[in-house]
Amino acid sequence: MGKRIVIALGGNALGNTLNEQKTAVRETAKAIADLIQDGHEVIVAHGNGPQVGMINLAMNADPNKPYIPLATCTAMSQGYIGFDLQNALSAELQDRGISKPVATVLTQVQVDLQDPAFQKPTKPIGSFMTEEQALELQKTGVNVMEDAGRGWRRCVASPKPMAIVEIDTVRALLSGGCVPIACGGGGIPVYASEDGRLLAADAVIDKDFASELLAETLNADALIILTAVEKVAINFGKPDQKWLDRLTPAEARQYEAEGHFAPGSMLPKVRAAVQFAESAPGRMALITLLEKAREGIAGTTGTSVQQ
Amino acid sequence: MGKRIVIALGGNALGNTLNEQKTAVRETAKAIADLIQDGHEVIVAHGNGPQVGMINLAMNADPNKPYIPLATCTAMSQGYIGFDLQNALSAELQDRGISKPVATVLTQVQVDLQDPAFQKPTKPIGSFMTEEQALELQKTGVNVMEDAGRGWRRCVASPKPMAIVEIDTVRALLSGGCVPIACGGGGIPVYASEDGRLLAADAVIDKDFASELLAETLNADALIILTAVEKVAINFGKPDQKWLDRLTPAEARQYEAEGHFAPGSMLPKVRAAVQFAESAPGRMALITLLEKAREGIAGTTGTSVQQ
Repeated sequence: MGKRIVIALGGNALGNTLNEQKTAVRETAKAIADLIQDGHEVIVAHGNGPQVGMINLAMNADPNKPYIPLATCTAMSQGYIGFDLQNALSAELQDRGISKPVATVLTQVQVDLQDPAFQKPTKPIGSFMTEEQALELQKTGVNVMEDAGRGWRRCVASPKPMAIVEIDTVRALLSGGCVPIACGGGGIPVYASEDGRLLAADAVIDKDFASELLAETLNADALIILTAVEKVAINFGKPDQKWLDRLTPAEARQYEAEGHFAPGSMLPKVRAAVQFAESAPGRMALITLLEKAREGIAGTTGTSVQQ
Repeated sequence: MGKRIVIALGGNALGNTLNEQKTAVRETAKAIADLIQDGHEVIVAHGNGPQVGMINLAMNADPNKPYIPLATCTAMSQGYIGFDLQNALSAELQDRGISKPVATVLTQVQVDLQDPAFQKPTKPIGSFMTEEQALELQKTGVNVMEDAGRGWRRCVASPKPMAIVEIDTVRALLSGGCVPIACGGGGIPVYASEDGRLLAADAVIDKDFASELLAETLNADALIILTAVEKVAINFGKPDQKWLDRLTPAEARQYEAEGHFAPGSMLPKVRAAVQFAESAPGRMALITLLEKAREGIAGTTGTSVQQ
């Protein structure tokens, strides 16, 4: 029986340049089309790490030009990525004789300015600077950080997603038989001002948590979080490394406490998966490789996270 | 009785900078909300002249970075503009107690590579160059032109729109009660390759013609083409200038032959209006100011073009 599935693609998996993107989306399209062909209703979400960094850098390279905020750059990245992604998926579906419109919808995600993440920006973005340049930039009110020994970068907050602003639009598209591409780059971060207006937040939203919220709100049966390994492991990279077929929320929390999952890498994926699995009975999150998504949903590989 | 209306906003009316855009969309939102409040079903289309020029320039400023084609820049401009436009319209509707989702949908418009426009690019875009720089650029295969005594610029083809690729998506949004923002910048220009794939065309599509096609395909009752004057005039700017309340296709053709409409300005608007009026009985195109759209649809101002 067909499931409703949200699939979260990594921004890195979409390539670092436009040419890489055009190649990468073909493989992505095959994996998504597999799920649609199997009768599932699919909603596609994706990251935008390399892309929004590149766009932000280009749009703000000339200090004499008006500053383009990060939220606007994310909006632009949804067009930049969606254009190629929707065409690759449309073409793949067409090749398989499946007639379904693929629709990229500009998606905003509401965050809370009281989120502690705004007090402690942790997400490095954009190009590298010297310490001197960084400290100079810091004087203008911009947050900077030293990034893993590679140099200094601007950094921004990564607050929790609170609500998908365009959720009714996504529902309308699903009702109309479309395959929505939504929450690109984790969604355009916005917050509600006192008069209820949505304003741009200077932040980026983790695409795994945005996808989790999207899946939860749409009452999806499954959330697929794609990554660079077929399964989640404990003791990753060590002699006693062990791949996991299934993971309960309780086990995940214990492994997390034991330090098995790398922050900024597997940890947010496991946390998002646990959050989805715990959000309602019967919900399943799957962490696996792009090319294993179909088998994973069929239950033969990947790590499934379930209550 | 409520009409189905496509409204075409000018890219210039959206401002030249992001700050100007944020101010401009508020006025735009009021005019669109007026129509929705009056019970009409509205689809919003818009231009992107200044915006795509700015994006194209910024994205390709560094010759060492991969080239970002115009079609991708148009995709990005749909995000850049749609983000502010949809929020302004949502806020305005909310203030009036109208609960309707506003949805920006990435829209591609198919063109024909055999279109004679590709043999003779006429649309200047991007920044000005010296003649020497322009001729140097021309050697790399890029088309250039002298632009009205202001300097040399790159120029691209402006082919006729043949089909709105995302038309089923727009229909799904309308069925779901959404207000779609579609065909931004005249749509992302694409052409079908031999194997049916959609590929980026190096072109820009006139937003009035794209809006006309959108209105025609959606079986709209009215097409509103906004401009900088309340009505179309003959002998514009001369002592015997005469404002027109109504214009039949036959009259429009005669006036066009007599040279009353400026190419690149009123002429494409009148042509698009005539095309829509002639596409089926009962269809009406309206050319007027943004702030007169509501009155124009009520029949009290603007120039209506009808058979």
